[in-house]
Amino acid sequence: MTYQKESLDELVEQMESYLNEKKYVQARETIVDLEPVDIAFIMEALPEDTIPIVFRLLPKELAAEVFVELDTDSQESLIRGFSKAELKEVIDELYLDDAVDIIEEMPANVVKRILSIADADTRRDINNILQYPEDSTGSIMTTEYIDLKANLTVGDAFKKIRRVGQDMETINVMYVVDKDRHLLGFVTIRQLLLADEEDLIGDIMDDGLISASTMDDQEETARKFKKYDFLTMPVVDKENRLVGIVTIDDAVDVLVEETTEDIERMAAISPSYKPYLNTGIMETVKSRIPWLLLLMVSATFTGQIISSFEDQLAAVTVLNAYIPMLMDTGGNSGSQASVTVIRGISLDEISMKDLGKVIWKEMRVAVIVGIILAVCNFAKIMIVDKMIFHNPITLQVALVICITLVFTVFAAKLVGCTLPIFAKGLGFDPAVMASPFITTIVDAISLLIYFQFAKMLLSL
Amino acid sequence: MTYQKESLDELVEQMESYLNEKKYVQARETIVDLEPVDIAFIMEALPEDTIPIVFRLLPKELAAEVFVELDTDSQESLIRGFSKAELKEVIDELYLDDAVDIIEEMPANVVKRILSIADADTRRDINNILQYPEDSTGSIMTTEYIDLKANLTVGDAFKKIRRVGQDMETINVMYVVDKDRHLLGFVTIRQLLLADEEDLIGDIMDDGLISASTMDDQEETARKFKKYDFLTMPVVDKENRLVGIVTIDDAVDVLVEETTEDIERMAAISPSYKPYLNTGIMETVKSRIPWLLLLMVSATFTGQIISSFEDQLAAVTVLNAYIPMLMDTGGNSGSQASVTVIRGISLDEISMKDLGKVIWKEMRVAVIVGIILAVCNFAKIMIVDKMIFHNPITLQVALVICITLVFTVFAAKLVGCTLPIFAKGLGFDPAVMASPFITTIVDAISLLIYFQFAKMLLSL
Repeated sequence: MTYQKESLDELVEQMESYLNEKKYVQARETIVDLEPVDIAFIMEALPEDTIPIVFRLLPKELAAEVFVELDTDSQESLIRGFSKAELKEVIDELYLDDAVDIIEEMPANVVKRILSIADADTRRDINNILQYPEDSTGSIMTTEYIDLKANLTVGDAFKKIRRVGQDMETINVMYVVDKDRHLLGFVTIRQLLLADEEDLIGDIMDDGLISASTMDDQEETARKFKKYDFLTMPVVDKENRLVGIVTIDDAVDVLVEETTEDIERMAAISPSYKPYLNTGIMETVKSRIPWLLLLMVSATFTGQIISSFEDQLAAVTVLNAYIPMLMDTGGNSGSQASVTVIRGISLDEISMKDLGKVIWKEMRVAVIVGIILAVCNFAKIMIVDKMIFHNPITLQVALVICITLVFTVFAAKLVGCTLPIFAKGLGFDPAVMASPFITTIVDAISLLIYFQFAKMLLSL
Repeated sequence: MTYQKESLDELVEQMESYLNEKKYVQARETIVDLEPVDIAFIMEALPEDTIPIVFRLLPKELAAEVFVELDTDSQESLIRGFSKAELKEVIDELYLDDAVDIIEEMPANVVKRILSIADADTRRDINNILQYPEDSTGSIMTTEYIDLKANLTVGDAFKKIRRVGQDMETINVMYVVDKDRHLLGFVTIRQLLLADEEDLIGDIMDDGLISASTMDDQEETARKFKKYDFLTMPVVDKENRLVGIVTIDDAVDVLVEETTEDIERMAAISPSYKPYLNTGIMETVKSRIPWLLLLMVSATFTGQIISSFEDQLAAVTVLNAYIPMLMDTGGNSGSQASVTVIRGISLDEISMKDLGKVIWKEMRVAVIVGIILAVCNFAKIMIVDKMIFHNPITLQVALVICITLVFTVFAAKLVGCTLPIFAKGLGFDPAVMASPFITTIVDAISLLIYFQFAKMLLSL
C-alpha cells in the first residue's frame, strides 16, 4: 500500500468529518495503520484544536513516533496541554536522539517541565547530549546502543540483545569495548547469527574502525556515511572512549539540511532551516535583505565605471546595447564555474591542494567556451543585428564586443573557480563565494576590459 | 582509527616506494586493513600499471569490495587484464546491485565477457535488473534479499537466515510474501530476536507497508527513505509481487546525485554525473556551452530595449549608470525566489496545489524587500552619489530609479517563484527555470519599467 499525497488529503477530509460527528472509533481506524510521518501530516492539516484529540486516539508507542514527526509548534502546544502522566508516557517512549531533537527546539520552561518529568537516567542522558555544540557530531548521537566486551561469547551476546534490545536505537551493529570503554571494533548482527554460540566476540569482530569524534562537524560525519556506506558510526571522545553512536537516518537528515544550506547561500540567502511554507514573511525578508543590500551597493560601483566612460558611450551609442549581454554572459560563466567547484568541495572531490588543477582546467575551458561564444556572437552581430536590423555596427565595434566577450568569460571562470577554494582555505563557507558575489566582481572587470578595447580599437 | 585525506596521501607514497622495491608483503600490509573506498583511492593515486599488481595482493572478498569503489576506467582496464578465472572470482564475490552498476558503465564487449563468465543464475539476475530503464527504481534494486512465508516459525526463519544469509545484501529487514510472491508485510531482525522460536512470522510481522514500484523514478523512491527513515524498501511489480529491494546506501547515492544535478541545472550547466576532476575539458565545455549560447542570444533582446531608448539615455546620461544595479538586483531577487521554490519542490515541501500560497507569500516579501531596498538606495543616491560624488542627479531621477527598483524586485520574485512551479506542473525539471533563465526575463521587464517611468517623470 502506498499513500500518495492526494490520498492523504482525502484522509484528512475523512478525519475532519469523523471528528465533527465525534465518531472517534472510525477516526482511529482511519489513521492507526499509517506511517507516523503520514499521521503527523494528517494531524497538522486538521483544525488545531482537534490535534490533542487525535493524538490521544493513538496507542502509546505509535503516539510517540507521531510526536517526533510533528512540527515544533504542534509539539510545544501538545506538551503544554499534557497532564504530567501523559507527558511522562511520551517522553519515556521516545528514542533518546529524538527526545534531544525535540528539546533543542523548545522554550526554556517547557524544557524544564520535560526534564523534571523524565526519570533520572533519561534526564542524565539527555543532558549529556545537550551539552554538545550545535552542528557537532555529539549533538546528533544517541547513547541507546549495545556494547559488548571482547571476552563475551556469541551466545551471551544474544542473551544481552534479547534483554536490552527492545529499547535500543538499533541492534544491527554493536560495538566492542574494553573495560575502560575504549573502542576496539564492531560486530554486525549478521556476523553473530552466522557464528557459533561459543565463538568469542573478540575473535569474530571487525577491528578496522572508522569512527567520529564528538566535536567533529556533523556534516563531516554525515559524509563519511555516504562515503563508506555505513548504517551506524561509533562516536568517541578525545580518549577514544565510546560515548554514543550516530545512525544513518540522522546522517541523511544532516546531508539534506546542509545541502539546502549550501543552495540557499549560493543564491545569496541566509539559510532558514525551515520548510518554505513554514517560514513567515518577516523571517523570509530578513533572510534575503542582507545580501541584496550588499550586492546593490556594490553594483553601483559598476555603474560608476559606466559613468566614467560616458563620453565614449555617447560617441558610439551602440556600445550601450551590448552591455547587458556581456554582463549576463560573464555572470553565467562565472557561476557555472563557482557552482561546480562549490559542489565539488562539499562532496569532498576538491580540496585546497587541487587549486592548481582546478585553475588549469577552468582556464582551458574558459578559452574554448569564450572563443565559441565570441565567434557565434560575431556572426550574430554581423548577420542579424547589422544586415537584418540595420544597426549601425562597424567591424571594429563587433571586434570590440567579441574580444571583450572572450576576456570576460576567461576572467569570469577564473574568478569563479578560485574564490570558493580560497574561501574554504580561509575557513569560510565556500557557498557564499557564489554567483551574486562573483557576478559583481566579473561585471566590473568585463566593463573595464570593454571600454579599454573600445578606446584602443575605436580611438575614443 | 580514522584516516584523514592527508594520511592517505602518505600511504600512497609508502605504497609507491614498496612497489618500486618489489616489497609486496609490506605493500599488502599497508592497505589490507583499510576500508575498501580508501584502498581504491590509494590505488587510483598510484601509477596505472601498478593497479593490477596491487589488486592481486588483496584477499578475494576485499578485492571485490575495492573493485566496486574504483572508477569506471580503472574497472574496465582491470577487467581487460583479468584471466577468465580472475574475472569469475570477482564477479561471483560482487553483490548483485554493485555488479549491475559496474556493468551499466562498461562497453558492450566487456559486458559480453562478464555475462559469459558469470554462472547462469547470476546472469539471469543481472539481466533482469538491466532491463529496467535508467533512473527507475528497478535499476537500483537488488534481488539478494530474504523472503519468508507467513506460516514459517521464527525458529525456521533463523534456520533460513543462517543458511543463505551470508550472500544477502542485508538481513536487517525481511519481507513476507504469499505463495505467489505477493507482498504481505515485513519483519526486522530485531523482532525475530525478541520473539519466541515457535511464534509464526505472520503473527509478528508488520503489515502497514510502504513500497516502491519498479517503474517509480529513483529520486521519488530515495526521498521516501528520508521521509520514513527506512533502511530498506521492497520493490514490487504491477501485480504487487515482490521483485527486489532497495537499500539505504543506494538511496543516499541517488539523493546526492540528484541534488548535484539540480544544483548544476540551476547554474545553467548540463549535468555531467562525474566528479569535477574526472570530467575532461571538452566534456566540460559541452556541458556549459548550450545554455551560455541561449542566454547570450536572449540577452541581446535586453540590449535592443536599451537601444530603442537611446535618445532618452542620451538626454539624461546618468540613467545609464544605474542599469547594472537594477539588473543585478532584479537577477538576485529573482534567483532567491526561484532557488527556494526549486529546493522546496525537490524536498516535497511544495507542489502545484501550493501555487497560490507561494505567490501570495512572495508578493508580500517582494513588496517589503523592494521598499527597503528603494529607501536605502534613495538615501545612498542622494547622500553619496549626489552630495559626496557630485553626480548630476535630480530628485526626479532618483525617484525613477527607486520606483523602478520596487517594481523590479516585485516582478523578479513573482517570475522567480512561479516559473519553477509551472515547469514542474508541465512535467519539466523545475531546476532549469532558475537564475539565468529568470534573470533574462526580469532584465527585460525591469528595463521596460525603467524607461517608462523615465518617460513619465522626466518628460522624455
